[in-house]
Amino acid sequence: MKTLGMQPSRRQFIQQLGLGVAWLGLATNASLVFANRTAILPFRQNAASLWLHYNENSLGMSPNALSAAKYAIERYGNRYPSASVDEFKVKLADHHQVKPEQLIFGNGSTEVLRAIATYSAQQNATMIEPSPTFGALKGYCKSENLNVIQVPVGQNFEMNIAAMKKRAMAQTGLVLINICNPNNPTGNIIDFTTMFDWINNAPETHLFLLDEAYFDYAQANARYKSGLDLINQGKDNVVISRTFSKVHGMAGMRMGYGIATVKTANKIKPFAAGFNLSAAGIAAASAALDDKLFYKKSIEYNQLSKSILVDTLNELELEYVPSDTNFILHRIGSPLADYAEHMQQNGVRVGRKMTLDDRWNRVSLGTPDEMKMFSQTLKAFRQKGWV
Amino acid sequence: MKTLGMQPSRRQFIQQLGLGVAWLGLATNASLVFANRTAILPFRQNAASLWLHYNENSLGMSPNALSAAKYAIERYGNRYPSASVDEFKVKLADHHQVKPEQLIFGNGSTEVLRAIATYSAQQNATMIEPSPTFGALKGYCKSENLNVIQVPVGQNFEMNIAAMKKRAMAQTGLVLINICNPNNPTGNIIDFTTMFDWINNAPETHLFLLDEAYFDYAQANARYKSGLDLINQGKDNVVISRTFSKVHGMAGMRMGYGIATVKTANKIKPFAAGFNLSAAGIAAASAALDDKLFYKKSIEYNQLSKSILVDTLNELELEYVPSDTNFILHRIGSPLADYAEHMQQNGVRVGRKMTLDDRWNRVSLGTPDEMKMFSQTLKAFRQKGWV
Repeated sequence: MKTLGMQPSRRQFIQQLGLGVAWLGLATNASLVFANRTAILPFRQNAASLWLHYNENSLGMSPNALSAAKYAIERYGNRYPSASVDEFKVKLADHHQVKPEQLIFGNGSTEVLRAIATYSAQQNATMIEPSPTFGALKGYCKSENLNVIQVPVGQNFEMNIAAMKKRAMAQTGLVLINICNPNNPTGNIIDFTTMFDWINNAPETHLFLLDEAYFDYAQANARYKSGLDLINQGKDNVVISRTFSKVHGMAGMRMGYGIATVKTANKIKPFAAGFNLSAAGIAAASAALDDKLFYKKSIEYNQLSKSILVDTLNELELEYVPSDTNFILHRIGSPLADYAEHMQQNGVRVGRKMTLDDRWNRVSLGTPDEMKMFSQTLKAFRQKGWV
Repeated sequence: MKTLGMQPSRRQFIQQLGLGVAWLGLATNASLVFANRTAILPFRQNAASLWLHYNENSLGMSPNALSAAKYAIERYGNRYPSASVDEFKVKLADHHQVKPEQLIFGNGSTEVLRAIATYSAQQNATMIEPSPTFGALKGYCKSENLNVIQVPVGQNFEMNIAAMKKRAMAQTGLVLINICNPNNPTGNIIDFTTMFDWINNAPETHLFLLDEAYFDYAQANARYKSGLDLINQGKDNVVISRTFSKVHGMAGMRMGYGIATVKTANKIKPFAAGFNLSAAGIAAASAALDDKLFYKKSIEYNQLSKSILVDTLNELELEYVPSDTNFILHRIGSPLADYAEHMQQNGVRVGRKMTLDDRWNRVSLGTPDEMKMFSQTLKAFRQKGWV
C-alpha cells in the first residue's frame, strides 16, 4: 500500500484526495474550532476536514440515486408520497424475497427501533443489550421507563452471549434483546451458529431485535448470517433492521426499515409514524437498489480503506478489533478526550466517547484517500507523542 | 370570476392550465383506472389528472426551496443532518420568536402527534377530540390503547366545545384534547375567544394539542388566533403543531414541528425518533422561511382558487362550509362513493370518505386553473345528474 510522504503540499493533498470543490466546501460547514493553532500539523493547515465520527459513507450515494432524488423533489416534492411508498414497498420486498407486509418502514432505522421500544413498553418488557452498543434503543427504552440491562462485552469486545442469555432467562414477560450485528462501536460480528442456536432455543417471549445496519460489509464473512434466515423460517420473535445510511451513502435521506414475519410486523407498524418516508428518500433508495455497480464499488472502497488503516495500525502497533463494518475500534496512546481535541484541531472529526476504556477510538472508514490522510495524521501524532 | 365554456378543447384546457409538461407527466403516475369509459366527459378524456384528495399544494414549493433541497442532497445527502438541524432550529425559533428548546421536530407534524400520543399513553390519558377531524392522532392513541372519546360536531360542522369541555371535566388524570384548528375536513375555525377562554380555565391536567396545519390560511380571519399566544403567556398545557406540507408545498419533504413551553417540549421530545429530519427537508424548509414572496403567492392563489370554487358552488346551489383552509367541504347530490367513482373516471382524485353524512365531499383547493377545471367538471356532473 502506497503511503504518503510526511509533508506533501496542500495542492498535492487536494490532488490525492480527488474530492473536488464540492467536498472542500463542506469544510466551511463544519464550524471547526482551532482552539490551539500551535497544535496543528503543517500538512493539515487549511486542509479539508475529515468527517470520521458518524460512520457515514464519504463516497456519497449512487449518482443514479442522486438524480432520482432531485427529480422526485422537482416532480412531486409537494405531494404526500403514499403511492410511491406502496411501489417501493413491493420493490424492496422483492429485493429481499419477502412479502411487502413484512416490511416496517422507518425514517431511518432509528424510527424502527423507536417503534419496537414503544411496542415493548406496552408489554412492560425488559430490554437487554451488550455494552457498548449503538445507543439509540436504550434512549428510547429509557424514555418509555423500560427496565434496561446492559451486559458488558468481554476482553476482546466480543458479546457475552452466555451472560446475556442468563439475564434474559431470569426475566418474566416480554424480553427485548438488542443485538447490533455487526456491533457498533466494536465492529465485530457474532458467529451465526452461536446466535442462531440462542434464538432457536429461546422462549417466544424473547424478542430479538437484530440491528443489521452494517450487514452489507459483513456478508463476505462466512461466520456471519443475517437474521433474515430465521424470519424466513417463520420465527415470530425476530425483527431485523436495515438502513440506506451506510453502504448506500444516504444518511441524510432518512431511509430505514425493519423486516419480520407478517404477524410481528403488524404488531410493530402501528408504533411508527405514518407517512414517514420522503419523496426524495424513496426515489433515491429505489434507484440505489438498482445500481449494483455502485453497491459493489461502495463495498470495495470500504475494503480498501480498511486495509490502508489496518496497515497503519499494524505499523504503529496500535491494537484494533477486526471489523466487518465501515469503521474500526482501535487503541490510542493517550486519553480519548486529548486525542479528539488534537484531531479536531487538525480538522479531523473523530474520537467520540464510545467505550468505558478511555484508550480506544472508533474511526469511520472514509474513502481510501481520506484514510491515507488519516493514516498520515496518525503517524504524525505518533511523532508528537499523541498516540 | 370568469367561468369556462362547457366543452373547451383539450388544447384550450392545457393552455388554461398552464402547467407544462412536468405536471402532465405526473398523470402517468396516477394509475388511473378507467373502469367505465362511457362515464368520461368529452373534455376530460386524456386530460391531466387533478389531485384534490390530500390537501396538498398544487403550486409546488418555492423555487428557492427546490434549489436548496437539490443542493443539500448533492452536497451532504450522505451525512447525518445533525449540524443543519441545529442551525435550522435556531432559525425557526427566531421566525416564531421562541426559544430553540421550545421546538419539537417531527418527520411531518404527524410524528409530533405520534410523540404526544406516546407521552400521553405513559400517563394513561384519555383523548378527546371532535368528530370528524384529522384522524392520525386517533390512530396513534388507539395503538397505545388510550381511551378515545369523540364528540360529534354540530349541524353546521362547528365543534361542540361545551360538550367536549363537559366530557373532559368528567375524566380523571391526564386528558389530551385534540383541536385541529382550522379543523380538517370541515375547514372552519374556532373563535379564539371561545378557545382561549376554555384553555385558560381548564385544569393543568388538560393538555391541549392544537393542530395548526392550516394556520397560514386562517390568520387573515380576525376571529382566529394561534395557540402560540397562550404558549408565549407560559401555558404549559398547550402544544401547537405546524407543518411545511401545506402553504409551503412540501408534503413530500416530511417537515413538521411542534411548539410548547420548554418544560412541556422537553417532556415530549424523547418520544420522537432522533435524526428525524432529512438533509433535503431541512434545506427546503430553511429556504422557504426566507421566501416571503412565494409564501404570499401561495396564500393569494389559494384565496383565488377558493373564490372560483365558491362561485361554482353558489351557482349550483351546493351548500358548503365556509373555509379558512386550502380545502372546502361541500354538499353533493349523490352518495359519495358514486361521486368519487365518477370523478375518478374523469381523472379527478377526490371524494375520500370524511364525514358520517354521505352527501358531503372535501375537495382540496388546487391552483386557480385546476379549480376552473374542477368547477367545469362539477357543472358537467350537474348536467348528468351526478351532483
